[in-house]
Amino acid sequence: MTTHHFTPTHYYNTLGTHEPVLRIAPSDTVITTTIDAMGQDAQHVKVTYGPNPQTGPFFIEGAEPGDILVVHLDRLTPNRPLGEAGVMLSPNVVEPEYVPELAWDANNQDVVWNVDLATQTASLVSPEERLGNFRLPLAPMLGCFGVAPAGGQAISTMTSGPFGGNMDYRGFVSGVTVYFPVFVPGALFFLGDGHARQGDGEITKTGIEISFEVQFTIELLKGEGNRWPRGENDTHIFTVGNARPLDQAVQHATTEMLRWLQTAYGLSAREAGMLLGMCVEYDVGNIYDPAYTMVCKLPKEFLPPRV
Amino acid sequence: MTTHHFTPTHYYNTLGTHEPVLRIAPSDTVITTTIDAMGQDAQHVKVTYGPNPQTGPFFIEGAEPGDILVVHLDRLTPNRPLGEAGVMLSPNVVEPEYVPELAWDANNQDVVWNVDLATQTASLVSPEERLGNFRLPLAPMLGCFGVAPAGGQAISTMTSGPFGGNMDYRGFVSGVTVYFPVFVPGALFFLGDGHARQGDGEITKTGIEISFEVQFTIELLKGEGNRWPRGENDTHIFTVGNARPLDQAVQHATTEMLRWLQTAYGLSAREAGMLLGMCVEYDVGNIYDPAYTMVCKLPKEFLPPRV
Amino acid sequence: MTTHHFTPTHYYNTLGTHEPVLRIAPSDTVITTTIDAMGQDAQHVKVTYGPNPQTGPFFIEGAEPGDILVVHLDRLTPNRPLGEAGVMLSPNVVEPEYVPELAWDANNQDVVWNVDLATQTASLVSPEERLGNFRLPLAPMLGCFGVAPAGGQAISTMTSGPFGGNMDYRGFVSGVTVYFPVFVPGALFFLGDGHARQGDGEITKTGIEISFEVQFTIELLKGEGNRWPRGENDTHIFTVGNARPLDQAVQHATTEMLRWLQTAYGLSAREAGMLLGMCVEYDVGNIYDPAYTMVCKLPKEFLPPRV
Amino acid sequence: MTTHHFTPTHYYNTLGTHEPVLRIAPSDTVITTTIDAMGQDAQHVKVTYGPNPQTGPFFIEGAEPGDILVVHLDRLTPNRPLGEAGVMLSPNVVEPEYVPELAWDANNQDVVWNVDLATQTASLVSPEERLGNFRLPLAPMLGCFGVAPAGGQAISTMTSGPFGGNMDYRGFVSGVTVYFPVFVPGALFFLGDGHARQGDGEITKTGIEISFEVQFTIELLKGEGNRWPRGENDTHIFTVGNARPLDQAVQHATTEMLRWLQTAYGLSAREAGMLLGMCVEYDVGNIYDPAYTMVCKLPKEFLPPRV
Repeated sequence: MTTHHFTPTHYYNTLGTHEPVLRIAPSDTVITTTIDAMGQDAQHVKVTYGPNPQTGPFFIEGAEPGDILVVHLDRLTPNRPLGEAGVMLSPNVVEPEYVPELAWDANNQDVVWNVDLATQTASLVSPEERLGNFRLPLAPMLGCFGVAPAGGQAISTMTSGPFGGNMDYRGFVSGVTVYFPVFVPGALFFLGDGHARQGDGEITKTGIEISFEVQFTIELLKGEGNRWPRGENDTHIFTVGNARPLDQAVQHATTEMLRWLQTAYGLSAREAGMLLGMCVEYDVGNIYDPAYTMVCKLPKEFLPPRV
Repeated sequence: MTTHHFTPTHYYNTLGTHEPVLRIAPSDTVITTTIDAMGQDAQHVKVTYGPNPQTGPFFIEGAEPGDILVVHLDRLTPNRPLGEAGVMLSPNVVEPEYVPELAWDANNQDVVWNVDLATQTASLVSPEERLGNFRLPLAPMLGCFGVAPAGGQAISTMTSGPFGGNMDYRGFVSGVTVYFPVFVPGALFFLGDGHARQGDGEITKTGIEISFEVQFTIELLKGEGNRWPRGENDTHIFTVGNARPLDQAVQHATTEMLRWLQTAYGLSAREAGMLLGMCVEYDVGNIYDPAYTMVCKLPKEFLPPRV
Repeated sequence: MTTHHFTPTHYYNTLGTHEPVLRIAPSDTVITTTIDAMGQDAQHVKVTYGPNPQTGPFFIEGAEPGDILVVHLDRLTPNRPLGEAGVMLSPNVVEPEYVPELAWDANNQDVVWNVDLATQTASLVSPEERLGNFRLPLAPMLGCFGVAPAGGQAISTMTSGPFGGNMDYRGFVSGVTVYFPVFVPGALFFLGDGHARQGDGEITKTGIEISFEVQFTIELLKGEGNRWPRGENDTHIFTVGNARPLDQAVQHATTEMLRWLQTAYGLSAREAGMLLGMCVEYDVGNIYDPAYTMVCKLPKEFLPPRV
Repeated sequence: MTTHHFTPTHYYNTLGTHEPVLRIAPSDTVITTTIDAMGQDAQHVKVTYGPNPQTGPFFIEGAEPGDILVVHLDRLTPNRPLGEAGVMLSPNVVEPEYVPELAWDANNQDVVWNVDLATQTASLVSPEERLGNFRLPLAPMLGCFGVAPAGGQAISTMTSGPFGGNMDYRGFVSGVTVYFPVFVPGALFFLGDGHARQGDGEITKTGIEISFEVQFTIELLKGEGNRWPRGENDTHIFTVGNARPLDQAVQHATTEMLRWLQTAYGLSAREAGMLLGMCVEYDVGNIYDPAYTMVCKLPKEFLPPRV
């Protein structure tokens, strides 16, 4: 139960079997920092390039393929006062005929947001005509994190998969626990791409992109083999599917939830259907990246006891 | 501002240009009943066949193509004590390789739910092994309603489109206002397919299917032309897209929201992007029917004033 | 074996249970005309409106739901010298980011083609800069035809389904036999939307739209129940799926082919897989309309004998 | 114009920036071998593991990001007498409800094919009930080949992308020229996964999987920047899109063709639309892998002169 203070000196733009920056043990805690999606640090200095440069990888002692890596996101704190955000909707999310009406002109440059931890709000630095300074509650979340993928792959942090990656799901906030499948020895955990706030889908390409101080704690479940990321917060358990089209992301997330209900809660196919049919909730992660993200959730209050 | 008490004597399985059962005026209220998706009434007697037989159509005086039909869902009340629900997950929502593991066998017959208005809960009539009597809060919603489609079409109540139809969105509850495009003179409003409760997506083919007493009030907005259904509740405005894959439903819903933000709230493409990028929420309607349903929502608290 | 000469006096823009224009018997032949997609006849006079007005419906004596309606397309002949075609690619078929680069401006008006039966070629009436008069072989095909759909529906001729409709498949040429499922008594056969030529996918919204003289012969297979259109030409048998996304159209077409192989050719699932895996060919029908069309083909030379 | 005879000693299961096995110059020819998708060589000995182990990478002198790597597939020759093929259709390509009827049981083991170069046919080693020995013409094609992807990625040979990869397109035969975008210095060309024959889509997971002797010749086009693979044979030019759903693969392929028509043939958006609308053909590559493949083709006879 060591607490490691780790200061990154270089970053990765792929999740892959890269040289670990630190070896940690299950139940260890790490306090570290992430830089923003474009490679700017807490001083707003560009120290590397995008997309979504990652702190890590952290090698978890004892992690083997087939295990589950448990990541408690203890704390996600923006650590500078300004963030940037895109303003043009992704052409992907509007009707094809409507695409030319998007903000294609010079008018589409990013906006700068004040990120104020004291009031826990973000507001526009320069007022926009009808929105004024537009003040919104902060909702810090981690956009891109995960483990090294299977098969010797190195996958761009632009996208996502069974190993996590750039899921841009606004549910990945402080206090959430995430369960990643382990594909390589040591799991190799990466994290980055903090957002001070974001709507569902990250449909303007970004949230409020900002650097973070992050504290996380690791655990390991031996040989329990999930296939897609799972998670848990105070009220829900959830599973994550990453694919295109969204229909396929739904299929991965729902199937992973079925596996979870059957192995951990002992439900038959019939009972799982009954529970999901009446209680399932779906959240949309990103619908911007090459792989979209869909989250399948169940309220804990309706779950039977674990087996 | 008349209140009509209407008792249906026949039902339709398509939304089309059928003979109106009642002519009403804007600001009129109708109190009527709907039967369940299989055609069973408040006495649990099968009076017609499925899918989703509709009460109506109601002809709205003065409604012309290009208008918006405003439907206030004043009250949706289950009016019998038992409902039925499917238990087998739709093969559409799981990974193709997982399909054979669904509840294909005799074990997959529907379950019967007690629907108790006093406690506002539903519970299984016969206990299931791990779930027991499984008690859940009621959340009555209207599964299938809408107006006659364009072009002389008659569309099965199995599916949905710009005219509404079988959207199976759990957000269509008492207190919600829905805005349908008008495609034919009189709009021709239909409603049916009440659910005492349902998870997102209606992924076991049904909610708790039940008959309803319904009260709704109609208004008319002349010449304001939406293209897809819109809605409003205490906290959000929302738009609805119906299509496959879900990606296309997202496109319709998001584009309709953009049109709304630009015409009613005076936002530029840039400002609409900023607002949506930070505040949009997506809800999943049905992912069972031939057309899937996606809902694009914005919290009212973050909206600028209407123009 | 009567030959009917039928001159249409009105047309339908939906496939539905409309009043038959002629009652014919199995083995009868009909010689009739179709008008173009915009409603222009052989004299290039606009006699009705689009989309895709249909000649018919023809009531086939003895046809009952569950039968197969066999339509031999004996002859499809353009019957006027000029056709029109769209020039702007559908935004659906290009990358979303590329949409603004399509021909959105005034430059995108339709072109007029000379359709010359003597030389069996089409050429541009007015030369285009780099293409000149651009001469191409004729390849007359029927864009939209089918039967009344199930469930009392009336479906726009803009789209397609299990009943056929606007499939815009360039394989529907003279000499082809098409097998439609019968959903209503009399089948109710409709036809229209002739193209003098078209590329795969009908990706500029149209082929060379033109009026036709058509001769077709009808047969009836009792109680043989297909679910999607099938077809046959000199070299191949084929099945047609209509849906979005294309993936789902593939699923319908492939599944219908499996059913055909198993019932008519006695193949086991294993053998059907072996045959399809080595010999299947897919053709793209339309990728423009609300439902896309995919065709699953097998060369007759590799088929085993029918059972 | 050197001819290299290269004998591989190890193979890669990802396309990535791996150590080159040979450095060659533009206009050089390479004669080498590939092993089958499961890692079996010309002696049918398993020398490594799947999926689709690749010979290479070959470093092309002078190739820089933004160039086009030209690969002439001079000759693809199966170099052993037996190949294996899957028999169970992919659950992806049938209707979800039909999935349980596929050949899930013990009956679904692969079949062995005799591959006879003398008669240029393949036939089943053990007869199947209704198909007998089922003899088919050989049609050798390369299933998986391409270059190192962008951004330091290493992508599994199970899938495909802008860099090529596991496209499983039956059009990649002897005599075809393929144009790959170059993403890294030296391009790093890989090849493997020969099929003696395959239907469209590779819908039973495999073609007739076999080892090959391959001869290819390389050229380099400096600074001509394509984004997706292009190709050319005697009759057609074509472009390749790899993505899911098929609709997106269509979009990539069609957009790449538009770019080609505009830069190499000088066509305006309007003229390109006219040409594609009348003459485009689409072929289906794989519809089995994580990314599907769609090919957009144009007959050379209808192309205007190059600019």
